[in-house]
Amino acid sequence: ELRGKLDKMHPADIATILEALPLPDRLMVWNLVKAERDGEILLEVSDAVRETLIASMAPAELTAAAQTLDADELADLAPDLPREVVQSLFQTLPHEEREQLRAALSYPEGTVGALMDFDMVTVREDVTLEVVFRYLRRFDALPDHTDQLFVVDRNDVLQGVLSLSRLLVSEPETEVTAVMRSDTLRFTPHDPADDAAEAFDRYDLVSAPVVDAEGKLVGRLDVAAVLDYFREESESEQLAQAGLREEEDIFAPVWNSVKNRWAWLAINLVTAFIASRVIGLFEGSIEKLVALAALMPIVAGIGGNSGNQTITMIVRAIALGQLSPDHARRLYRKELGVSLINGLVWGGLLGVLAWALYGSLALGLVMTSAMTLNLLLAATVGVAIPVTLARLGRDPAVGSSVMITAVTDSGGFFIFLGLATLFLL
Amino acid sequence: ELRGKLDKMHPADIATILEALPLPDRLMVWNLVKAERDGEILLEVSDAVRETLIASMAPAELTAAAQTLDADELADLAPDLPREVVQSLFQTLPHEEREQLRAALSYPEGTVGALMDFDMVTVREDVTLEVVFRYLRRFDALPDHTDQLFVVDRNDVLQGVLSLSRLLVSEPETEVTAVMRSDTLRFTPHDPADDAAEAFDRYDLVSAPVVDAEGKLVGRLDVAAVLDYFREESESEQLAQAGLREEEDIFAPVWNSVKNRWAWLAINLVTAFIASRVIGLFEGSIEKLVALAALMPIVAGIGGNSGNQTITMIVRAIALGQLSPDHARRLYRKELGVSLINGLVWGGLLGVLAWALYGSLALGLVMTSAMTLNLLLAATVGVAIPVTLARLGRDPAVGSSVMITAVTDSGGFFIFLGLATLFLL
Ligand SMILES: [Mg+2]
Ligand SMILES: [Mg+2]
Ligand SMILES: [Mg+2]
Ligand SMILES: [Mg+2]
Ligand SMILES: [Mg+2]
Ligand SMILES: [Mg+2]
Ligand SMILES: [Mg+2]
Ligand SMILES: [Mg+2]
Ligand SMILES: [Mg+2]
Ligand SMILES: [Mg+2]
Ligand SMILES: [Mg+2]
Ligand SMILES: [Mg+2]
Ligand SMILES: [Mg+2]
Repeated sequence: ELRGKLDKMHPADIATILEALPLPDRLMVWNLVKAERDGEILLEVSDAVRETLIASMAPAELTAAAQTLDADELADLAPDLPREVVQSLFQTLPHEEREQLRAALSYPEGTVGALMDFDMVTVREDVTLEVVFRYLRRFDALPDHTDQLFVVDRNDVLQGVLSLSRLLVSEPETEVTAVMRSDTLRFTPHDPADDAAEAFDRYDLVSAPVVDAEGKLVGRLDVAAVLDYFREESESEQLAQAGLREEEDIFAPVWNSVKNRWAWLAINLVTAFIASRVIGLFEGSIEKLVALAALMPIVAGIGGNSGNQTITMIVRAIALGQLSPDHARRLYRKELGVSLINGLVWGGLLGVLAWALYGSLALGLVMTSAMTLNLLLAATVGVAIPVTLARLGRDPAVGSSVMITAVTDSGGFFIFLGLATLFLL
Repeated sequence: ELRGKLDKMHPADIATILEALPLPDRLMVWNLVKAERDGEILLEVSDAVRETLIASMAPAELTAAAQTLDADELADLAPDLPREVVQSLFQTLPHEEREQLRAALSYPEGTVGALMDFDMVTVREDVTLEVVFRYLRRFDALPDHTDQLFVVDRNDVLQGVLSLSRLLVSEPETEVTAVMRSDTLRFTPHDPADDAAEAFDRYDLVSAPVVDAEGKLVGRLDVAAVLDYFREESESEQLAQAGLREEEDIFAPVWNSVKNRWAWLAINLVTAFIASRVIGLFEGSIEKLVALAALMPIVAGIGGNSGNQTITMIVRAIALGQLSPDHARRLYRKELGVSLINGLVWGGLLGVLAWALYGSLALGLVMTSAMTLNLLLAATVGVAIPVTLARLGRDPAVGSSVMITAVTDSGGFFIFLGLATLFLL
């Protein structure tokens, strides 16, 4: 009866079940799924789980599964399919779909071309709405997310869009040209997916036309693809922040996880080792005043936290387009102001604690000064890193956190131990 | 001419401009915006910027601006409006909208009720599609995101939905009841917004009906609201991860930022102070072997990084519903395996480095063992924290990172200095 239940479930729900099962159980369930649904489910599972499912299937099964999909969906799946399967697909697809698949595969990830589909309903501008109604009645169903029809000329050049809403509220005798909108937003396949997704959110779109350099309609972007894109982006940002290269199949072998995580650990090891050598410079001072060893991680740690706050704020402002270069100086001033207050308040508090614990007012003063200076360093570098990355055209979200922590750790140790060496010994 | 340009811009674009301007310029531009557009722009700007705009307006201006909005939009704005403005709104609204506003305000944030709108187009099931077409033609425009009509009985109880797609492909003589779907997804106003948003993504919805306990249609949720919800959620998660309580107006006074950031810094100060006291326990050992001071931050830092990787992975698996409690034990085994390998590899490398730097094989062995043990600790606690939070019904994403860092810092210092005291001195 499990099979019966699976038949009635949405592919996305079956995907979740497969993801939550250890490999043997997963393959058992996978074998119960009807072959004609394999394709749509493969689209829904995570990359890591998709690999395990594809590995369990014969080439002929895979080809059959892929043939149930649209060209845009095939293009999403193709990178994970064995080369022979992709080749046999190209041979068996009808001409139009083959060209669509070729087009979809030609656009790099992160472009509109990679997100678009080919589910356009087109009409001519010189017909009446009555004709449009008759034309639509010949469909079995309109494609998902059809909120507008695309008005094209005989060369497929986009003339405008006719929303279903306008179609339905207008008199049937009206001509398309009288009710279509021609000033509508359109994308090209090479536009960054980021910008298009942002526009969907901003203008609350359901679908949008994609045209080539000559204005010919070549595809369509819909809000479901945009929603998926946003979620994948925010997930991979979260993963990247913890130095995970990709999502993990939680039931995959230990070895896969080690590989996924090692690069970040290696980078952090290097920065930690550098910080350790900074401490090494002051071993003489620590030997004479061992309290320094206990207090120095506080200075470094709080600097890292404060720097990460600054970076998070600036990265967001850049992403939201709130930060123009002429305001950078203003921001430095503000962040320095915040750090100065925090340094004096929290550094002052810790200075008093250090004084009380170790009975040395001078040590307390060094503690307060070092905290303040390290927070000022964190603010300066916390603004500079993302602003510089953005100016270089790089993503300011990637790697910023590792860099700021490296600076505030080594810098914090150097400032604190340096001041202590100068004034206490 | 700036005024002319503003008149032609989309409210979301004007919002971005306002957000990117320092306060005096911002208010200058705000005064150029036509009064009847104030409402829609207030909806689009960030909370921090909205505050500054509202503070600049007289109560009468605010009331006029608010009157241009729908009840659901008013409900979003109301918490930021002066009490007198909200009261005068209640008095001036027509009866139906007043009841809608009252309803919208009654649902707490994070529920479907707080996200839904009231833009439903309803039809009866016993009419023909021809009648529906004639009914729709009387509208000036259908509400945004109308991809389906809601079929209700005379008591407004939802009977099913009629998608525009079905409407357009079917013969006009057909009755609504023959083409509507009655097994469609519906929400109640008290459903968690998270679940509804997840369903929109999963089933690629554009709109969905919201019904009360008796099945009466009370509202509608659309994909634009869901997209906003996802983006706000992922933003506030990012902010929370850096201990920022809310987004900041980057041009706000320093003092606002200090308040936004202080709580997290205070928590981190406490955990850093505890770690410092752990080191304090071993001051005698450090005095005898000062190399310990230089090496100990490496052990603590790498433990924190590894623990954060584990937590990120588990939090994601929980959020995606991939993690059932019966598999927790399996996960512990896996994470411990990953940590053991990383500890032996990276810890071994650092052990060799310590040996080379300080000429003590014993010190190198202590380094390797401490790294391995701290990574095992990080794995155990990295699984335990989010799993426990989830079991307690708390959000596993909030606070996990601070906790794991506290454990791996104090734990790392204790393990390394403890082993050194036992075996080296
Ligand atoms: Mg199967
Ligand atoms: Mg498709
Ligand atoms: Mg694609
Ligand atoms: Mg939006
Ligand atoms: Mg809106
Ligand atoms: Mg689609
Ligand atoms: Mg104005
Ligand atoms: Mg509305
Ligand atoms: Mg609302
Ligand atoms: Mg709406
Ligand atoms: Mg989806
Ligand atoms: Mg799909
Ligand atoms: Mg740290």
